[in-house]
Amino acid sequence: MGSLDSNPASFDAFATDAEGFQPLNTDDVRSYLHKSVDFIYDYYKSVESMPVLPGVEPGYLSRLLQSAPPSAAAPFDIAMKEIREAVVPGMTHWASPNFFAFFPATNSAAAIAGELIASAMNTVGFTWQANPAATEMEVLALDWLAQLMRLPESFIMNRTGGGGRGTGGGVILATTSEAMLVTLVAARDAALRRIGSDGVAGLTRLTVYAADQTHSTFNKMCRLAGFDPANVRSIATSPDTDFGLDPAKLLEVMQADVDAGLVPTYICVTVGTTSSNAVDPVAAVADIATRFNAWVHVDAAYAGSTCICPEFRHHLNGVERVDSISMSPHKWLMTCLDCTCLWVRDTHRLTDALETSPEYLKNDASDSGTVTDLKDMQVGTGRRFRGLKLWMVMRTYGSNRLQEHIRSDVAMAKVFEESVRADDRFEVVVPRNFALVCFRIKPYGDMTEEDAEAVNRELMDRLNKTGKAYIAHTVLGGKFVLRFAVGSSLQEERHVRSAWELIRKKTTEIISGEMSV
Amino acid sequence: MGSLDSNPASFDAFATDAEGFQPLNTDDVRSYLHKSVDFIYDYYKSVESMPVLPGVEPGYLSRLLQSAPPSAAAPFDIAMKEIREAVVPGMTHWASPNFFAFFPATNSAAAIAGELIASAMNTVGFTWQANPAATEMEVLALDWLAQLMRLPESFIMNRTGGGGRGTGGGVILATTSEAMLVTLVAARDAALRRIGSDGVAGLTRLTVYAADQTHSTFNKMCRLAGFDPANVRSIATSPDTDFGLDPAKLLEVMQADVDAGLVPTYICVTVGTTSSNAVDPVAAVADIATRFNAWVHVDAAYAGSTCICPEFRHHLNGVERVDSISMSPHKWLMTCLDCTCLWVRDTHRLTDALETSPEYLKNDASDSGTVTDLKDMQVGTGRRFRGLKLWMVMRTYGSNRLQEHIRSDVAMAKVFEESVRADDRFEVVVPRNFALVCFRIKPYGDMTEEDAEAVNRELMDRLNKTGKAYIAHTVLGGKFVLRFAVGSSLQEERHVRSAWELIRKKTTEIISGEMSV
Repeated sequence: MGSLDSNPASFDAFATDAEGFQPLNTDDVRSYLHKSVDFIYDYYKSVESMPVLPGVEPGYLSRLLQSAPPSAAAPFDIAMKEIREAVVPGMTHWASPNFFAFFPATNSAAAIAGELIASAMNTVGFTWQANPAATEMEVLALDWLAQLMRLPESFIMNRTGGGGRGTGGGVILATTSEAMLVTLVAARDAALRRIGSDGVAGLTRLTVYAADQTHSTFNKMCRLAGFDPANVRSIATSPDTDFGLDPAKLLEVMQADVDAGLVPTYICVTVGTTSSNAVDPVAAVADIATRFNAWVHVDAAYAGSTCICPEFRHHLNGVERVDSISMSPHKWLMTCLDCTCLWVRDTHRLTDALETSPEYLKNDASDSGTVTDLKDMQVGTGRRFRGLKLWMVMRTYGSNRLQEHIRSDVAMAKVFEESVRADDRFEVVVPRNFALVCFRIKPYGDMTEEDAEAVNRELMDRLNKTGKAYIAHTVLGGKFVLRFAVGSSLQEERHVRSAWELIRKKTTEIISGEMSV
Repeated sequence: MGSLDSNPASFDAFATDAEGFQPLNTDDVRSYLHKSVDFIYDYYKSVESMPVLPGVEPGYLSRLLQSAPPSAAAPFDIAMKEIREAVVPGMTHWASPNFFAFFPATNSAAAIAGELIASAMNTVGFTWQANPAATEMEVLALDWLAQLMRLPESFIMNRTGGGGRGTGGGVILATTSEAMLVTLVAARDAALRRIGSDGVAGLTRLTVYAADQTHSTFNKMCRLAGFDPANVRSIATSPDTDFGLDPAKLLEVMQADVDAGLVPTYICVTVGTTSSNAVDPVAAVADIATRFNAWVHVDAAYAGSTCICPEFRHHLNGVERVDSISMSPHKWLMTCLDCTCLWVRDTHRLTDALETSPEYLKNDASDSGTVTDLKDMQVGTGRRFRGLKLWMVMRTYGSNRLQEHIRSDVAMAKVFEESVRADDRFEVVVPRNFALVCFRIKPYGDMTEEDAEAVNRELMDRLNKTGKAYIAHTVLGGKFVLRFAVGSSLQEERHVRSAWELIRKKTTEIISGEMSV
């Protein structure tokens, strides 16, 4: 079994110098980190002037950097130089104020500091005992955020006002996908138990539901969890509901499934779809789900952050009757990746499906039942100290600043929306709910939808090729639509206005016949 | 749908000051990060003197920090003060040189710097286009590490020496669990196709295999992927194979399953188990798997790092015939959490199971088929720029330093092992393969195994309560065993020797009758 005793000579051949190699030598740590901070300072100062989308070709990096790992150590400055010269020019700059694609990954000084400290402490808080502070900080941060979003008390772990420990609670995961996966598995296992399935034999009878605008990862997570692809129901949406889920249609499909002997198990409701920020009606879906004993999960990855502002909170009406909700502060709450918060009304339904108890992790605290072992609410065992950065964001900025930030982004999106509406050549395709504007060049003359797609695609391509803005697209009800997402953390109104001017200019070029250039 | 136009007044009520709130104000970024670096410097300087395992009670943090989120912003120093006063005292200090529990989470100055820069750039590289540099850096880092581990060329994405792009490749995931899950799903879907299953109907026939020493997360991942718990075969191990998988037993179980009409689908092989660092025989298992067309995954989470040293590489013999292998640089390659590398021989087998292609992520590069979209090799869609820190570790330290680090840890473990062997009261329970020593107080007098457990548990508890060392335990072949894992990144030989002296002292106290104190 390869005990080293058989070849002690190999140690002598690689004797270290007097000091030995110290990977966490404190002077090195300080020096490397200071250099990194200087780099970040310069990067934020200059990122505005860099092309948002780089003009590199596939394989560019391997042509710039050596393809074999070095054997000798190199000064830290070498790595920094290669980052400056080879990495930065090949980046899509999500931090650029000219980034309007996808949803922005918002960030803040407090979050980066929290992430930095956590990565230096580098603890693995799988159980409470493995890092009490990390576990409790995560619980505290989730409880705080739940309060900011006015989630019902049933989702809060340590209830305020002497309410004690509830049955619900939260966990920080990597992605919305993971939140969907663990809740799908919990719902699946509960449904299998309910129908008295022998092992997973009953799996072919379980059905799940979501609007056709639900993030594509939902289908992927259903596949991962072993649901039959044929039993994943995609409820068609239309412009009539601004692409939100139609509860009547959902009811119809679920009832038909029950009539066919199938078992409705899980419904995914989205508040703020990725494609167009459509909002599914939470309360109406919760009402329907109750009839069928189906799990309701709310995916509020992006728009959940807005619910810290009272004027947006109504989108979550009915949340007190759902089983779980997730939202990602790494999207819009200025917390760097990764940070997806999942709350469930009954943590035991999760831990029943996800608990492990190997001998080497057993400890008195876990045995006592008085602590939360967060590994039992997630996919993996190991876990980072993610609660720190989320707490630091709330602690440092307070809800006032956070609300201000959301409102400022929405106000900028409104500026853009109004500009689009004021130009006859364009149309806003669906109502703007948050800080995403879905728009396009309106078909003109005898244009078909195909022609309209070509013109709008051309606009997107030309715009993105300038390097001065980056926007993305989607397809809504058969229409090719441009997505303009406001909110990158260095963004100011002037960037929105500049992007709009550039869009106008490129549109004029295209319409005046330079399209085939 | 909640357009803001209906209540514009709310904007006025929360007007920002002249500057507005700038979450990434560069001066704040620099100031907060410098303060964080100072904190880290002090933390590393002082962590040795802190109790490794804190003496806090469940709920301690909510008694120290406010239970409701603040509405007002607070100076950054407030958060830092609360970290010092409330978080640090409640931490299990994985960074302490006196930490010998679990497996250490090794770290380095270069890795923290890489993580810091990545968290400031904060890109989401789901597709190549979404961040070409991050995608290519991840591929490069994985190719480098594969070379260091002398993995077969079939696992390398960009082959050296003009070999072009291969069919295999890697991806960086959060945890070994995720690596198991995505490969289980790929193997599952391939097996279902092979048996012509209608949807997941054939799932009840699929079987998976692993030694009983395999990490408990394997069972959890099988459950997540929808395998029938009754079809997860746990092959019993024994001291005869030092708790490694016995290929003859595996063959027997697999053949019996085939004879019963079941479909062997996946075998998980561990190189360096968590419990005792047992090594399953990769080549022998690969031979058996071929007969049944089963997927072989090698979990080398911890010990994979040693394979960058030629003298350990033999543990991977046969890896050229397995389907996938994962190892975690966040365990022993000085790369802070999280960083688990997964390589597969045929990336298409993964992407077939995991690919999504929503309209809003479509782009020319993906359509061209010349790039890797790493979202299709992982659970989620979003992903951090993890390749940077891994590359920086290899770029800065070079393979020489990395090897030196592994060897130094192993040498320290050997020092401890020899100390144990030199004291008649103790025994080393299984051969030490890497830097983990499994030992215990030998049963003496007319002690039963139960008595021996009580004595050893008492030793562990007393030791851990001193705060001067933290060790964990396991159970091997019915014996309660202490685990002493060397390798925390601030550790030096003197810490190992001090811990041993403390163990001797506590053992003397216990044996001399102070046990029931």
